[in-house]
Amino acid sequence: MNWENNVRRVVPYQAGEQPQSGKVIKLNTNECPYPPSPRVEAVLHQFDYDVLRKYPDPDVSALTGALAKRHGLSREQVFVGVGSDDVLAMAFLTFFNSGKPILFPDITYSFYDVWADLYRIPYKCQPLDKDFLLVKEDYLKENGGIVIANPNAPTGIMTDVSDLEEIIRANPGSVVIIDEAYVDFGGESCVPLIQKYDNLLVVQTFSKSRAMAGMRIGYAMGSRRLIRYLQDVKFSFNSYTMNATAIAAGVASVEDEEYFREITDKVIATREYTKEALQKLGFTVTDSRTNFVFAAHRSIPAKKIFEALRAQEIYVRYWEKPRIDNYMRISIGTRREMDETIRFLESRLGELEREQS
Amino acid sequence: MNWENNVRRVVPYQAGEQPQSGKVIKLNTNECPYPPSPRVEAVLHQFDYDVLRKYPDPDVSALTGALAKRHGLSREQVFVGVGSDDVLAMAFLTFFNSGKPILFPDITYSFYDVWADLYRIPYKCQPLDKDFLLVKEDYLKENGGIVIANPNAPTGIMTDVSDLEEIIRANPGSVVIIDEAYVDFGGESCVPLIQKYDNLLVVQTFSKSRAMAGMRIGYAMGSRRLIRYLQDVKFSFNSYTMNATAIAAGVASVEDEEYFREITDKVIATREYTKEALQKLGFTVTDSRTNFVFAAHRSIPAKKIFEALRAQEIYVRYWEKPRIDNYMRISIGTRREMDETIRFLESRLGELEREQS
Repeated sequence: MNWENNVRRVVPYQAGEQPQSGKVIKLNTNECPYPPSPRVEAVLHQFDYDVLRKYPDPDVSALTGALAKRHGLSREQVFVGVGSDDVLAMAFLTFFNSGKPILFPDITYSFYDVWADLYRIPYKCQPLDKDFLLVKEDYLKENGGIVIANPNAPTGIMTDVSDLEEIIRANPGSVVIIDEAYVDFGGESCVPLIQKYDNLLVVQTFSKSRAMAGMRIGYAMGSRRLIRYLQDVKFSFNSYTMNATAIAAGVASVEDEEYFREITDKVIATREYTKEALQKLGFTVTDSRTNFVFAAHRSIPAKKIFEALRAQEIYVRYWEKPRIDNYMRISIGTRREMDETIRFLESRLGELEREQS
Repeated sequence: MNWENNVRRVVPYQAGEQPQSGKVIKLNTNECPYPPSPRVEAVLHQFDYDVLRKYPDPDVSALTGALAKRHGLSREQVFVGVGSDDVLAMAFLTFFNSGKPILFPDITYSFYDVWADLYRIPYKCQPLDKDFLLVKEDYLKENGGIVIANPNAPTGIMTDVSDLEEIIRANPGSVVIIDEAYVDFGGESCVPLIQKYDNLLVVQTFSKSRAMAGMRIGYAMGSRRLIRYLQDVKFSFNSYTMNATAIAAGVASVEDEEYFREITDKVIATREYTKEALQKLGFTVTDSRTNFVFAAHRSIPAKKIFEALRAQEIYVRYWEKPRIDNYMRISIGTRREMDETIRFLESRLGELEREQS
């Protein structure tokens, strides 16, 4: 007998590369091209490091309070975790115990099936239609839970909140998770539905629109009951997940609504600019409401373009997966970074096109 | 059908209180009475907050590298998490999947049974002997895994490494976790055994001896194989658990060995001083190799003393549990805090003793 027989075998999620060289144009992990609110800097630079010797507030009250206020909820309706991945991992563990398959789209955030596998939760992927739109009817059948990213990744496409409401209403026996990691870039949030449906959990993150991927803060909003169950499981896992600097920096960010609007508006404007430029170069680009575009060229395989970009130290994301293997996901950087990327494509696509024929 | 039927029901771990008032003497959660290394302050006050917009290094290489160097291991033998609770939670999930009961002492860190319950891992508690010593033979029978805190909490008592080695050697079919949260206060570490036994996982923390409970850093050391399995599960849970400030502050702390020795030596000296003073007041005090003492009074019930201390805003830890309900766990604070606590007991014990008779 060897201990290795009892190990939980998993196929881990593959995150985008994190090249350490400063020269690269990094458009592969949907990070924000602008720094966090200057208030975050002030908080760190004035941080009373002596408090670090003590455990942080296990209830993270300052941060759940700030988030509750911003979203018009009570503190007991907010749960905070180490990025939205931590929040989603806890939610899968807490809510998907029926033994029945949970449902999510075939093309979506590729961590959902990883969590399901980790916890041995059965799942059935529901195909998006040919235009990558969610097929509402697929979520009206029996299930053990539902997870929908809205706007979706990597397609960037938004499903109408009215359609999601129909799904939530039709499933009182299941928790429906709406993953709104990208909602701040022009999407419509399901948060207003929380007061109506106690089986709805809405997840958001500081990693994209608050430029704080490095600080690891995500959160969930839902009915008090739902949040209490999630808290119970969290307190059975790790009493203190949020460190003192993350809590303080998180509060500073939430309190700076003006800066938040400024940077998200800039990203949205650059996204529309990028979309138009790519279309002129022969790309089909989905209607993205996120901080990335999802683009396929009319004649050159995405993999070829992806490799040409990479050779130029421009990193975008590409998946060799059915249905999307001709698309690239390009995060929205600064205007200058997008211009450089577009100029490079302009200079190179002709040659790649000729190689094709 | 209601979604609540599918919720994972748990009884969460109860951490010690975290009173927010500054006046209290807080000796209830084994925090360090001294601040972290001044290098930690420097790192935060000079932190380049712009890096926060990017995801942190998922491999936490800087910190695993620093820890590996300090412990004479390779980077691939070190795993870092959000406090040792996060590390232990991941280890339970990764290694204890045999379906056979895992073993740990009846009196020990009260999170072990919480994790087992969370993941539906069967377990059997093995009674410590009447002096709270580990009975080695209890761990030589069939099992699905073993967890031993050494030194143990809340007793503070150390088991000889030679006894632990016998347990590790006798169980090649199980992962043996040695939880060394308190080892830096005069205990003997099992780290040297890692090169000999690939089924040994040693867990340590920054929360006690590095005065960084508020930064949430813990780590595990073991064979490359063991660590790789743990990494795989971690990457199936959350790609980025350590935020950028925790990584930088962690490295700064590890590199300041001198300060580390200074504060742990001070805590040890204060512990011995406290132990003697308590003995003079009629307490039995275990032979603690930790940053707390575990003490029972010869005639006054612990609960009475606990309540008297609490009324005075001196917080210690008390459990109304079989076998230990006459003991208090008192964390070692500054010399001044311990003197104040001792003076208060001196002034009060006589009266409490009279109430008894």
